[in-house]
Amino acid sequence: MKAVIITIGDEILIGQITDTNSGYIAKSLDKIGIEVFEMLSIADDKQAILNAFDRCQNQVDLVLITGGLGPTKDDITKKTFCNYFDDELVMNKSVLAHVTKLIEQHYKRPISQINKEQGLVPSKATVLHNDLGTAPGMWMQKENTVFISLPGVPYEMKYIMESAVLPKLISEFDRPFIIHKTILTYGVGESLLAEKIENWENNLPNFIKLAYLPNPGRVRLRLSARGKNKMILEEAINDNIASLSEILGDIIAGYDDTETLEFVLGKLLTERGKTLATAESCTGGKIAQVITSIPGSSKYFDGSIVCYQEKIKVAVVGVQKATIEKHSVVSAEVAKEMAIGVQKIMKSDYAISVTGNAGPTTDKTDKEVGVVFIAISGPEGVIAQEFNFGQPREKVIDRAVNKSLEMLRSMILKKG
Amino acid sequence: MKAVIITIGDEILIGQITDTNSGYIAKSLDKIGIEVFEMLSIADDKQAILNAFDRCQNQVDLVLITGGLGPTKDDITKKTFCNYFDDELVMNKSVLAHVTKLIEQHYKRPISQINKEQGLVPSKATVLHNDLGTAPGMWMQKENTVFISLPGVPYEMKYIMESAVLPKLISEFDRPFIIHKTILTYGVGESLLAEKIENWENNLPNFIKLAYLPNPGRVRLRLSARGKNKMILEEAINDNIASLSEILGDIIAGYDDTETLEFVLGKLLTERGKTLATAESCTGGKIAQVITSIPGSSKYFDGSIVCYQEKIKVAVVGVQKATIEKHSVVSAEVAKEMAIGVQKIMKSDYAISVTGNAGPTTDKTDKEVGVVFIAISGPEGVIAQEFNFGQPREKVIDRAVNKSLEMLRSMILKKG
Repeated sequence: MKAVIITIGDEILIGQITDTNSGYIAKSLDKIGIEVFEMLSIADDKQAILNAFDRCQNQVDLVLITGGLGPTKDDITKKTFCNYFDDELVMNKSVLAHVTKLIEQHYKRPISQINKEQGLVPSKATVLHNDLGTAPGMWMQKENTVFISLPGVPYEMKYIMESAVLPKLISEFDRPFIIHKTILTYGVGESLLAEKIENWENNLPNFIKLAYLPNPGRVRLRLSARGKNKMILEEAINDNIASLSEILGDIIAGYDDTETLEFVLGKLLTERGKTLATAESCTGGKIAQVITSIPGSSKYFDGSIVCYQEKIKVAVVGVQKATIEKHSVVSAEVAKEMAIGVQKIMKSDYAISVTGNAGPTTDKTDKEVGVVFIAISGPEGVIAQEFNFGQPREKVIDRAVNKSLEMLRSMILKKG
Repeated sequence: MKAVIITIGDEILIGQITDTNSGYIAKSLDKIGIEVFEMLSIADDKQAILNAFDRCQNQVDLVLITGGLGPTKDDITKKTFCNYFDDELVMNKSVLAHVTKLIEQHYKRPISQINKEQGLVPSKATVLHNDLGTAPGMWMQKENTVFISLPGVPYEMKYIMESAVLPKLISEFDRPFIIHKTILTYGVGESLLAEKIENWENNLPNFIKLAYLPNPGRVRLRLSARGKNKMILEEAINDNIASLSEILGDIIAGYDDTETLEFVLGKLLTERGKTLATAESCTGGKIAQVITSIPGSSKYFDGSIVCYQEKIKVAVVGVQKATIEKHSVVSAEVAKEMAIGVQKIMKSDYAISVTGNAGPTTDKTDKEVGVVFIAISGPEGVIAQEFNFGQPREKVIDRAVNKSLEMLRSMILKKG
């Protein structure tokens, strides 16, 4: 079963917004065994939409479309649907009632003419209820292809996917099994990794595919198996993961795609009943933000002091002025005092600190752009390490965040 | 002049990574007057790549491809290029020398066979130097269409775009003018906004297009003009922006796409020589992270205390235990004490604080998921406001971040 995902919107084609809907939809379809054959972004243009529909018609089983359902003049998806399906818009009473309720509840005002028109849907469409917004989803079919239209607002699209689209797809279509397993590795580059596992890779059965997904400081190895017999797939994947694990040893940090480093760390801290605090200079709160992106992080995360200024490092975190004067504010010594300081203030078991130059300029420090010191303080002492993460700013920050979590993980594991 | 952007990679089609390259490339091309006609994501599959190339051939002037250039077996773009252009791979000495240097400098080891092969490029390709990585870019032409292949690693792709692709496109092609202007509005929803400006919208000349770009709590209005005469375009855009500004009045927060709220705030604080600190509970450091994403923010941002735990709110930020007991930790009173507390600790002119339930569960508080209190403390006192940002977690956090910046902006502007 094959699908195409189409996102409609000029704002995507001029690069004003990044399309995150396609990725979410792809992931959801992949989980239920539907292969995404292509993702396509096109303009808010009737002819472009019709051409894309034509191209997909009878070539794939499923076309998922987001965008162009808003209340304003630049939103033309509904009208184009009518055109393609030789249909007309009719007022849907239950959609109209829902829109009226939403507007009255949230905006405390009567419904306007523009909002009323959101109750119009093509007469042949099955309406997919949108509890979180005013634009409903629509399900239509032409010959062998199902066309599903969803709003472009990510959380509304997600709501309709979960509550209506996926259940309906599962109940109405036969699908093969797809199994992915990902191994998260740290500290070894892509090409060295490839050499290490070359023999193993050459012996993979042909229904298993291997992909390398490199990120700053981490490489994920993804195995994908596709077929009709779930048991055979699972067995083959598990066998190959086991033999790969033996080859890779301790550079493995986790085994699942949801097992990001912050997730793995959360599990480690929760299991051990330990807590964490951070003191961040050049990462500007990003370590805290990554850690608190995990639901349940309040169990082990005490908090962070973002000390962007030298005076805050001294007055709030407790770094000695003399240390800064002697070693520079970007130094191992200051990183250590930051980690120990925040650990003491928050009464945490572990603390991470980062001080460095993310760029684009070096400000008043003596270190070049990209130089970062990370310190980790734990029950048995504090360590600090120097890095040069190069440029640009975003890469320096991301690598510092990843590296600091990796260092903390090592320290916790060494404690046993 | 029309372009198609193609991203190659199974990891995109199964939703494992979000493609941010296409957006960046689109923005860069748009700036120099090249229209992106379509974005396409396809699998690491020879036939899929060849089909996409065939479809673009002589239909558009330019095809920009990212991905599939790594050193491992799943990277097949170079071989497929040879296939499509009836070419063969030859060792490029300067690429090989660069790869050797990079590996020796960064990894302190001799170059491996796998790395050596990165020096191979199709004989007909113009090599685009990649200073930041081992995979070079390639520029090839077939009849009326130029094909450019770039590595998938975002900062490497960006480097080659800036240093080689854009300059070469500008020097070798005639291009029309495209002008975009964006007005950033706050606090009025998309459909009310549409009603407010309906007459104005109906009177737009046909070479100017209007788009509504809604986000939680903010709507951007984008005007795009396209044509041959830059002066006429600029005059028409400026006239229409002026008349629109009159209609919208004080719900306008900025006039350019780069003028995000955090950027506008940075300008305001810098101009006035004022400083800012934040105390964050449910936003987990995201306000600090958004503020410090602006280069130069160290001038006005003192720092943040992320106080994820009740005990940290009391011990570090200085919230009274009695206040929490009397009013709940999610309350206007606690938000106010957090703002005043961090303002005092960091000796800042302004402070933002947030306390709320981002979900998915209410933890131990008495307020429902989505309830957030934001306080702003300034030279003339402190205010707090209650919101219900609904669900899910990511939306609650984003709306709280936006709303807090908006409230601070209002307070600063009222001071004059």
